[in-house]
Amino acid sequence: MSETIKVGLIGFGTVGSGTAKILLTQQELISKRAGCNIVLSTICDKDITTDRGFDVPKDILTTDVNKVIEDPEIKIVIELIGGIEPAKSFILKAIKNSKHVVTANKALLATHGHEIFNEAYKNNVEIGFEASVGGGIPVIKTVKEGLVANDIKIVLGIMNGTANYILSSMTDQGISFEQALKKAQELGYAEADPTYDVEGIDTAHKLAIMAMLSFGVKVSLDDIYTEGITTLKPIDISFASEFGYRIKLLAIARKHEDGIELRIHPTMVPESHLLAQVNQAYNAIYLVGDSVGKVLLYGLGAGQMPTGSAVVSDIVDIARNISKSAINRVYSTGIPFNELKELKLKPMSETTGRYYFRFSAVDQPGVLAKIAGILGEHGISIDSVVQKGRGQKKKSVPVVMLTHEAKEEQIKAALEKIDQLQIVTDKTVLIRVESKNSLY
Amino acid sequence: MSETIKVGLIGFGTVGSGTAKILLTQQELISKRAGCNIVLSTICDKDITTDRGFDVPKDILTTDVNKVIEDPEIKIVIELIGGIEPAKSFILKAIKNSKHVVTANKALLATHGHEIFNEAYKNNVEIGFEASVGGGIPVIKTVKEGLVANDIKIVLGIMNGTANYILSSMTDQGISFEQALKKAQELGYAEADPTYDVEGIDTAHKLAIMAMLSFGVKVSLDDIYTEGITTLKPIDISFASEFGYRIKLLAIARKHEDGIELRIHPTMVPESHLLAQVNQAYNAIYLVGDSVGKVLLYGLGAGQMPTGSAVVSDIVDIARNISKSAINRVYSTGIPFNELKELKLKPMSETTGRYYFRFSAVDQPGVLAKIAGILGEHGISIDSVVQKGRGQKKKSVPVVMLTHEAKEEQIKAALEKIDQLQIVTDKTVLIRVESKNSLY
Repeated sequence: MSETIKVGLIGFGTVGSGTAKILLTQQELISKRAGCNIVLSTICDKDITTDRGFDVPKDILTTDVNKVIEDPEIKIVIELIGGIEPAKSFILKAIKNSKHVVTANKALLATHGHEIFNEAYKNNVEIGFEASVGGGIPVIKTVKEGLVANDIKIVLGIMNGTANYILSSMTDQGISFEQALKKAQELGYAEADPTYDVEGIDTAHKLAIMAMLSFGVKVSLDDIYTEGITTLKPIDISFASEFGYRIKLLAIARKHEDGIELRIHPTMVPESHLLAQVNQAYNAIYLVGDSVGKVLLYGLGAGQMPTGSAVVSDIVDIARNISKSAINRVYSTGIPFNELKELKLKPMSETTGRYYFRFSAVDQPGVLAKIAGILGEHGISIDSVVQKGRGQKKKSVPVVMLTHEAKEEQIKAALEKIDQLQIVTDKTVLIRVESKNSLY
Repeated sequence: MSETIKVGLIGFGTVGSGTAKILLTQQELISKRAGCNIVLSTICDKDITTDRGFDVPKDILTTDVNKVIEDPEIKIVIELIGGIEPAKSFILKAIKNSKHVVTANKALLATHGHEIFNEAYKNNVEIGFEASVGGGIPVIKTVKEGLVANDIKIVLGIMNGTANYILSSMTDQGISFEQALKKAQELGYAEADPTYDVEGIDTAHKLAIMAMLSFGVKVSLDDIYTEGITTLKPIDISFASEFGYRIKLLAIARKHEDGIELRIHPTMVPESHLLAQVNQAYNAIYLVGDSVGKVLLYGLGAGQMPTGSAVVSDIVDIARNISKSAINRVYSTGIPFNELKELKLKPMSETTGRYYFRFSAVDQPGVLAKIAGILGEHGISIDSVVQKGRGQKKKSVPVVMLTHEAKEEQIKAALEKIDQLQIVTDKTVLIRVESKNSLY
């Protein structure tokens, strides 16, 4: 065993503990595979007294972050505190000290990634962020290396385990969003403040990273149309099922001649597609490349040990490069940072797809004709209709519809008119549909 | 763009053409990502006149293999002729000439891999073989790099697209093996001589490679229990479906305290498992690591462009290492070849699992009692029984059974006795079952 490479960890929480546990307990196996000796020399956290459930040499624990980012012996700094500050300052300082950085911090990379990648590029250090998307699934490596021969056309992903867990519960048990969220919180699948997960923000962070790598463009969060799952109703999940679909919070990035579409919203996925079979807290990323065709990667998108597995894979990658003097053997951003192109966004209004509508209408003859009339005026043709509850003593009945391919802009214009009709008693529910045609 | 790295291709058939097409048409994109200029300088084949459907500079074509393996300018030799000889001699000669080798030749690696890897190790060159397992799916890279932090416990795979295509057709259309094979041959999914695919031999080649990388051991083909799909009957596929299973030709490698089990056979997989949803010519590899948990990779396991995608990913990897002087940054065999351990095999007779039986028995009272009695004597307990056709004018009726967990040795002993019974009219059909317990 040749060189010894020291790494320092900032953040000894859930993922930090998983990472430290792997580095400390699997050191021999990992070092043999890496071809160099990887040593966790310092762990920094505010809390260095709580027992993490495995043996940690006391002398490597510190509350002073400078013991990591100012230590000239430490070559790789692992940032696992999350959030924007002080993570960002720590990372930038580490980079300026010529240290390589490994992070799982998708929020930071999605919002301040350009600054960080630019600094890293200038200082000739690497940023490893395998753990930022898909937890333990090696999706970043797959895009940058495994599929290096491909012009990637499509990235679809179930990238948030919490949202997927909630949707799975709603689907399997017919419970409401609120009930499913409560259950997820009790089981530790959702945080006390679940906003980032259920509003699609966390998914947007991840899609920003994936789109940058897949298409070689700079992506800002504002480019991504983002809609969460908080307003989803069991009735729509149940109608979707009747049509042969499951509802997933899907991240969608597609390259077209006239631009790239980037969007996140509840999406009806055909039951027969593998993405529809991704349940509970699992994640999956589905990629289409011009040579490889369709590839799907599936695994745990979060959690102490899966995320630790991804963090350690980055550490090993960088350690190999240090020991072979091959820094930036693979560019952190897929191609050199300064060669990333400006994004040419295909605006949401220009995207096309199929749509599911649930209209709430008064129970009287002629309603369907009126709705269908407005859709027709906007060039939207109907694939199938389900109308239930007719004749019961309800004030309004749901009229459910699947359209053929239509443009978002026309859909929105038609819905605005429809929702102004006197016979329509409530805001129309719209869910976008990935049909087999668009998936395959 | 800095260094230029020349590669030479031997074998301009299906995969060779796909590889050449990618290298010639995507050269700019690939070189930008690689950080060096990758140039396909020579293509050798017996047939250099047939049009491959894309532009090839005439002056790079040759029928003289020495123009590739003896050219001092060529750093990477791509072997895509397949089979044992002359592929083996070409590869060994290239290695002795200090050239790195990229190959999709699983048959060669599974049978003569030790010699090739040993020569490569001694000559400090790399062997890239991403395309040898799972076609375009980056499964080799995932095991060696993405999951480097993991002690891998389980590898399950649908690794042969032809067999999976045939099984899918049999399942979806209720047709016989012979009919499904004929259809697959007509559509180009099966070769004129399908032996390697349908007898599980090709799958065994791939499992040998995967087991070596996953467990760090030397595997010989003789270590792998291999059973094909040629004797599968539609009736068993249909009974499996009644029990909630789909039949797949599954490669299974599991690490136990007392050894590693390696086997390939038709396997009943629970319908709810993702592996059961892998249809047509698709492949999937399911891995369980101690940190990452379950990971599944899915994609096209064969074909010109998907396999070409994997070949090119190896070329780029090696080219990056050449340009950074970082040869063997990742060991071709996961750990150094001379550190691979001898395999401690768990013999097939010692493996345990659940079993499906279809007994052909005369239609008379007491038959089930006799069969169940013998099973009981061998410590095999029955989970569920289906008996159909009772009362019809048939000489024999199928009695179908699922067992609880049992040992292969006991199963075989019990079946031998049962098949000797006068009331049993035909050899009992046995299909092994992966239950949810063993999968998760």
